[in-house]
Amino acid sequence: MDTLHQSFTVKFSYDVFFTSALFDPNNKLINDFLTGSNLSTSIKKILFVIDEGVTNTHPALVSQIKDYFIQHNQTQLVQDILIIPGGEPVKNDTRYLDQVLEAVNNHGIDRHSFVAAIGGGAVLDMVGYAATISHRGVKQIRIPTTVLSQNDSGIGVKNGINYFNKKNFLGTFSPPVAVFNDELFLSTLSDRDWRSGIAEAIKVALIKDQKFFIWLEENADLLAQRNRAAMNYQIWQCAKLHLEHIRGADPFESGSSRPLDFGHWSAHKLEYLTNFEIRHGEAVAMGIALDTVYSNLSGRLSTEESNRVLNLIQKLGFELTHPLLQVQQDNSPILLGLQEFREHLGGQLTITLLTAIGKGEEAHEIDPALVKKASEILQELNQQTAHNFSSSIL
Amino acid sequence: MDTLHQSFTVKFSYDVFFTSALFDPNNKLINDFLTGSNLSTSIKKILFVIDEGVTNTHPALVSQIKDYFIQHNQTQLVQDILIIPGGEPVKNDTRYLDQVLEAVNNHGIDRHSFVAAIGGGAVLDMVGYAATISHRGVKQIRIPTTVLSQNDSGIGVKNGINYFNKKNFLGTFSPPVAVFNDELFLSTLSDRDWRSGIAEAIKVALIKDQKFFIWLEENADLLAQRNRAAMNYQIWQCAKLHLEHIRGADPFESGSSRPLDFGHWSAHKLEYLTNFEIRHGEAVAMGIALDTVYSNLSGRLSTEESNRVLNLIQKLGFELTHPLLQVQQDNSPILLGLQEFREHLGGQLTITLLTAIGKGEEAHEIDPALVKKASEILQELNQQTAHNFSSSIL
Repeated sequence: MDTLHQSFTVKFSYDVFFTSALFDPNNKLINDFLTGSNLSTSIKKILFVIDEGVTNTHPALVSQIKDYFIQHNQTQLVQDILIIPGGEPVKNDTRYLDQVLEAVNNHGIDRHSFVAAIGGGAVLDMVGYAATISHRGVKQIRIPTTVLSQNDSGIGVKNGINYFNKKNFLGTFSPPVAVFNDELFLSTLSDRDWRSGIAEAIKVALIKDQKFFIWLEENADLLAQRNRAAMNYQIWQCAKLHLEHIRGADPFESGSSRPLDFGHWSAHKLEYLTNFEIRHGEAVAMGIALDTVYSNLSGRLSTEESNRVLNLIQKLGFELTHPLLQVQQDNSPILLGLQEFREHLGGQLTITLLTAIGKGEEAHEIDPALVKKASEILQELNQQTAHNFSSSIL
Repeated sequence: MDTLHQSFTVKFSYDVFFTSALFDPNNKLINDFLTGSNLSTSIKKILFVIDEGVTNTHPALVSQIKDYFIQHNQTQLVQDILIIPGGEPVKNDTRYLDQVLEAVNNHGIDRHSFVAAIGGGAVLDMVGYAATISHRGVKQIRIPTTVLSQNDSGIGVKNGINYFNKKNFLGTFSPPVAVFNDELFLSTLSDRDWRSGIAEAIKVALIKDQKFFIWLEENADLLAQRNRAAMNYQIWQCAKLHLEHIRGADPFESGSSRPLDFGHWSAHKLEYLTNFEIRHGEAVAMGIALDTVYSNLSGRLSTEESNRVLNLIQKLGFELTHPLLQVQQDNSPILLGLQEFREHLGGQLTITLLTAIGKGEEAHEIDPALVKKASEILQELNQQTAHNFSSSIL
């Protein structure tokens, strides 16, 4: 009998909104979204899951949300708002996933209702995964509260949890129905978290947009000094570049190419090796430094441009490297990260390197000897700078 | 700052192949598929997960697969072939899911490698789910071995497991990369399983294709007598109608409409109520009978057409109803199935009923009194027939 051919396309679309004070009763943005998408006659429910780090710094948030939905009652708020820990632990322990699944079940959240996650990237990743696998997908809304999640992870199409000690071993590609970036959440971030997310802006500028890199150089001081307007522009531009990349190439990553992971192969491994004591963005800054110097040592990138990258990373207050990024021998833990990175993506090893500021290139082989040399150069630079900093303090 | 709009389409395509003796060394079909899709230079792996019911009736299968991949060694067979129980229990207990995830992890199956499931619909559902959530999706191949999975569930885009005692509470929409329907697997099915899957053909014919319904009427005796050619045509035509429906309408079911679930609201509930002692197809046949008589009682369908449907169901050897489908009062367990069906899909209750043979219509309200009457009519008919059968035996 004849082979039957199946072929169809599925359209995905969503908006990333920028706002201030999302749950101010006078801010109609989220209510307009929720009621605008209500095409049927039945009342939709919305379940909120919030990062404990956010409720700690914004203790009035839960009551603000409840007040908001008393005023805007076309959508039925699930009164039992779920508070879960933030950061990587929420992706490491499946009991948090189960908590969200139980809430979806207990409160009768169906495929036309909403699960809204408020928090950092880890909470959004885990809740997005829970929403996607519940009833084959209830509608997920993302409300990222960190620089990193507002400019990168929170606005994209991926979710996941860690399993078998491997980052994002379980997960799916599943776009949200909307993202709300509220600048007010950024004001309470620690300096470390404020800075950390900017690493993704450096990354996307380096592989895609020379002009944005120059803007980052020119505005590094303002960003380091927590200037709000500069931060807002950085987030908007970085989010825009990420969204363009996703729709332009291969949204669900069927190929082996993943340029947005520039600097990430070593960063992912380093996060595990330090038991997530260093932030994702801090690890990415070090990973960018490593792959930039590697790009220079392998003859792809000029020394001048390589130095500009390292200068920007330092100007923003990042460390250039970490003792665990040093390569002692061929089986150094960090080199295993290369193999794990390949395995997670599958297919051929594909690492993005730089040929110029604003221009990435794919490489399929990485020379461990050059990785070793690059990490030594960075260690030395880092020590010199630390020394200089000490001198200037004395 | 301006709202950023994201929008993109993702294309999905796969073939459903029909064959005999898939792992005969001279049958190049699956090898051609595996090597044809190998666009990169790296060797792909393939992990097999097999339904225990299949290895029991085809004890040589594991060694046939191993021999096949010795001969066709462009794809690397994972020697550790996983055998798991078949039927609903494999979807009820997450330890089987974990077994597949562990195998994916231990054998380094990546996004360019394959997980091939051989078995009935439950095994395909569970393994498809495991493959989809691993590394955000490794490639799944489906090799359905029952009538039901070859003509319906195995060729579609859904997967899932049961959770919180709810059918498919966890799952995703995720197309396979290929489906191989091998007729040889059908030869060892019990009469009950051979018959059971034909219920989905009755269903799809009733809502979409009058001609196919007439073909089923004309070939009911051949099908009941296990005629291979008739069964092959039934499967091919039923699969074709299912594939056309999926690509034509709303592949990932963003709306509330689900015409392919004609007869299924009560069937799903009945499976749970009987602790899966009746087959899915048997329950669907009873669900079709119920919704057909309901269509007649509610003035949608002529009595003559309704009787033709019931005759076909009985001619194929199905029971028309089950004691647990009887409605005693308003909160009869079976009526709760309506609410659960709505909740799983979300939005407005949407049940497909018949206006003619070959023509479905959506209804948003179901009258419990008419459900009660329909189930009583069927109970009486079923008893009469049982009586007639007994008489004719005596």
